[in-house]
Amino acid sequence: MQTSKIIKTAFLKSALTEENPHISTSAVIDWLKERNNAIKVHVNKIRFDQMKHWAFDQNRGLLGHSSGKFFTIEGMNVKTNWGKVPEWEQPIINQPEVGYLGIITKEFNGILYFLLQAKIEPGNVNNVQLSPTLQATRSNYTQVHKGKKPMYLEYFQNASKDQVVLDQLQSEQGARFLRKRNRNIIIKIEEDIEVHEDFIWLSLGQIKKLIRHDNLVNMDTRTVISGISYENKNLSIQLNDFLTDVLINNTFETGMILSALNNSYSMHSFDQILNWITALKCSFDLEISSKSIYEIKDWYVEDKEIRHAKNKYFKVIATEVEIENREVTSWTQPLVEPLQEGLIAFIVKKINGVYHFLVQAKLECGNFDIIEMAPTVQCLTDSYSESVFLPFLSDVLNPKPGSVRFDSLQSEEGGRFYREQNRNIIIEADDEFPIEVPPNYIWVTLNQLNAFLKFNNYLNIQSRSLISAISFL
Amino acid sequence: MQTSKIIKTAFLKSALTEENPHISTSAVIDWLKERNNAIKVHVNKIRFDQMKHWAFDQNRGLLGHSSGKFFTIEGMNVKTNWGKVPEWEQPIINQPEVGYLGIITKEFNGILYFLLQAKIEPGNVNNVQLSPTLQATRSNYTQVHKGKKPMYLEYFQNASKDQVVLDQLQSEQGARFLRKRNRNIIIKIEEDIEVHEDFIWLSLGQIKKLIRHDNLVNMDTRTVISGISYENKNLSIQLNDFLTDVLINNTFETGMILSALNNSYSMHSFDQILNWITALKCSFDLEISSKSIYEIKDWYVEDKEIRHAKNKYFKVIATEVEIENREVTSWTQPLVEPLQEGLIAFIVKKINGVYHFLVQAKLECGNFDIIEMAPTVQCLTDSYSESVFLPFLSDVLNPKPGSVRFDSLQSEEGGRFYREQNRNIIIEADDEFPIEVPPNYIWVTLNQLNAFLKFNNYLNIQSRSLISAISFL
Repeated sequence: MQTSKIIKTAFLKSALTEENPHISTSAVIDWLKERNNAIKVHVNKIRFDQMKHWAFDQNRGLLGHSSGKFFTIEGMNVKTNWGKVPEWEQPIINQPEVGYLGIITKEFNGILYFLLQAKIEPGNVNNVQLSPTLQATRSNYTQVHKGKKPMYLEYFQNASKDQVVLDQLQSEQGARFLRKRNRNIIIKIEEDIEVHEDFIWLSLGQIKKLIRHDNLVNMDTRTVISGISYENKNLSIQLNDFLTDVLINNTFETGMILSALNNSYSMHSFDQILNWITALKCSFDLEISSKSIYEIKDWYVEDKEIRHAKNKYFKVIATEVEIENREVTSWTQPLVEPLQEGLIAFIVKKINGVYHFLVQAKLECGNFDIIEMAPTVQCLTDSYSESVFLPFLSDVLNPKPGSVRFDSLQSEEGGRFYREQNRNIIIEADDEFPIEVPPNYIWVTLNQLNAFLKFNNYLNIQSRSLISAISFL
Repeated sequence: MQTSKIIKTAFLKSALTEENPHISTSAVIDWLKERNNAIKVHVNKIRFDQMKHWAFDQNRGLLGHSSGKFFTIEGMNVKTNWGKVPEWEQPIINQPEVGYLGIITKEFNGILYFLLQAKIEPGNVNNVQLSPTLQATRSNYTQVHKGKKPMYLEYFQNASKDQVVLDQLQSEQGARFLRKRNRNIIIKIEEDIEVHEDFIWLSLGQIKKLIRHDNLVNMDTRTVISGISYENKNLSIQLNDFLTDVLINNTFETGMILSALNNSYSMHSFDQILNWITALKCSFDLEISSKSIYEIKDWYVEDKEIRHAKNKYFKVIATEVEIENREVTSWTQPLVEPLQEGLIAFIVKKINGVYHFLVQAKLECGNFDIIEMAPTVQCLTDSYSESVFLPFLSDVLNPKPGSVRFDSLQSEEGGRFYREQNRNIIIEADDEFPIEVPPNYIWVTLNQLNAFLKFNNYLNIQSRSLISAISFL
């Protein structure tokens, strides 16, 4: 118990800190720009039959790697009583291995810093983004690709029970991945550690500041830090001093601290929210079955891409990746290329004096457990050009003056997605905004969201991306 | 929040109450005996081809109902790096529908009573057991069998948010069912309600007393009441009076109340337990694929049964069921017949003055999420006749004098299993019993177990059966 309290205090202090003896926030931005200019990444679209080690398996009806590892692109049939489309078919990424997304943390002068890496991913919009200390699939770290052992892997493999301060199995995009989960893990070390090239120490406050900029912090870093919980009923005296200074101003950020720490004054009890999601899981079915990629309805496997008949949603492409750095590295791999930009947004509102997030229950075909909690709005830009009615979309697209609290473009995982980015928005609703919402929406405090995040498969990756952006500074 | 506190207090008071203005505990036992004598249930084993509406589908390789509803018996291939058997095949029950296991509760003279039904199930060892108010698959309540609408269904379908005081998706036997879950739900009503024949009001204390007897309380009732949480930091004054009387004696039962209410003095923090199970889920794989029932290795589909080559584990049989009551009712259905009796046991021990349960992480092939928390010992009796070493089995089979706190036979669900019962044991370990345990075991308080029970798929049905037996009286 004691350990839990200490680490929650340490996380909160780090989130409230932007000072850094190692590197300032603006220096990080400059350094990333410089790295981006220095490194050239060429992603050439090629034919599927030009890929090395990757090929279609005609019998099993899928696209896979010759080792049988990494991931496959498969066909899937989906049946559900959720939404307006009772049945459809689509390609999906099947990657049953649980990968590590791990961050090493260490205290310097009483403040916790996070070891992040400037990492190149082929699909990134810009080349280099800040990634966790360790980002490795099991194929990576069991060295199927015969490459080097990932750096810092041994710290995670040998971590003692007390060093592990966060350990969560979290989902990826349910519309693209079949029940994919990653192990989000944070460890805290005491000993000195070698900081390799391209790695830097950042406070949590700095990371959250950097997320305000487009495409600097990658999805993997965002999902790991989204899982951090700050709740602490017995704040240490030291932290109380900290908070008194901060809370003196009645800003959006201080309101967010209260929403994160406060476990009273919530509109619904935690059990009521659990009951709400249980009832939805019992009412809606999700039946999926695998199918040959050649036989899925409305999709075509062509020489260079797997695409939808209407050229909508996304396509699967074959790529040759070349990274020009000190040495040239190249490989081929499939990537998923989106055909529309996405929009994810939370509407937040003060209820009983505490900020509540308007959460949507959402069924996606690759979900591990039918329904996950999603942002208020989660859609492809196409959805709104088609004049389909989406609840709360107009509130997000036509925000009242001064109500936008966060607005930036954030990338999806560059190892699987080709230049995919979503607009991330947080809007503060005013008193006029109704408290009554449709049955698959519910108001939840940040403290309650943090509590759900400890458990597998309650919050989807889009909601976690937005939560990672909540800054207390 | 307020509602949560009130209901937790009400649950605790009911658990501490054996008085009942409606019916005494001994009268319930007599009444059940009488019902059991009055009702004759004949279960005749027949050939599969003698069943009505049930038949093998040669193409799909399964045994199913002509409506496509209810459940199917399918073949399954299992691969895992857990345990000593890396691959096997077996039949499994596939019942994707989520069913209702629901109990109506109501206060009389300030005490909460539970509406239970004396219900006949074909597979029951004795015929009649106490089941929840409502026990219905979706096929039941959408009336696929063209029968009557289940009694009291409308109370659950129309329950308001405030009436629902427990709502959990809980797993069934992972070795027999493919990812099966039921909706465990308790509602609390204020209005008068008609009590139909065969239904009675019982306090939670009475139900737990009845579980001390063999095969009186069915599995469905046990799983629903196991989910009840009592934690309450701000006990009402009224309840404090209650507790002062009770806690004056330092008994096993009062120790259990403390273990349920206390959320300090636990050996591991809740987060540490979460980290422990996350790490295990990341280390162990469970890969299942469906296969024709005719092609699974070591299993034979014969005229009257599907059996293992060594006649071990279980067999699937075809039955004709006849219930002789006021009117004769009969139908045919498959049932699963165990070939060995099972044993499930928790070892509990006072650590830091609070009772802790020795929990085992267990992978079973039909688990929804790879690993669930299981009792200290969970095995078929055969496993120990074969002199396979099972941790803690000898502690349970050769208990120290005076250390057995609970020992009775409990049935599995009689709608699917033919006369299957498990011996349920709780042993109190003394000071000599080691605190250090193997890596897939962990000490957990009752309060912590209750907290995990709120979430899907953390505690398996065997551990829940034992938790339901924990009496505070």
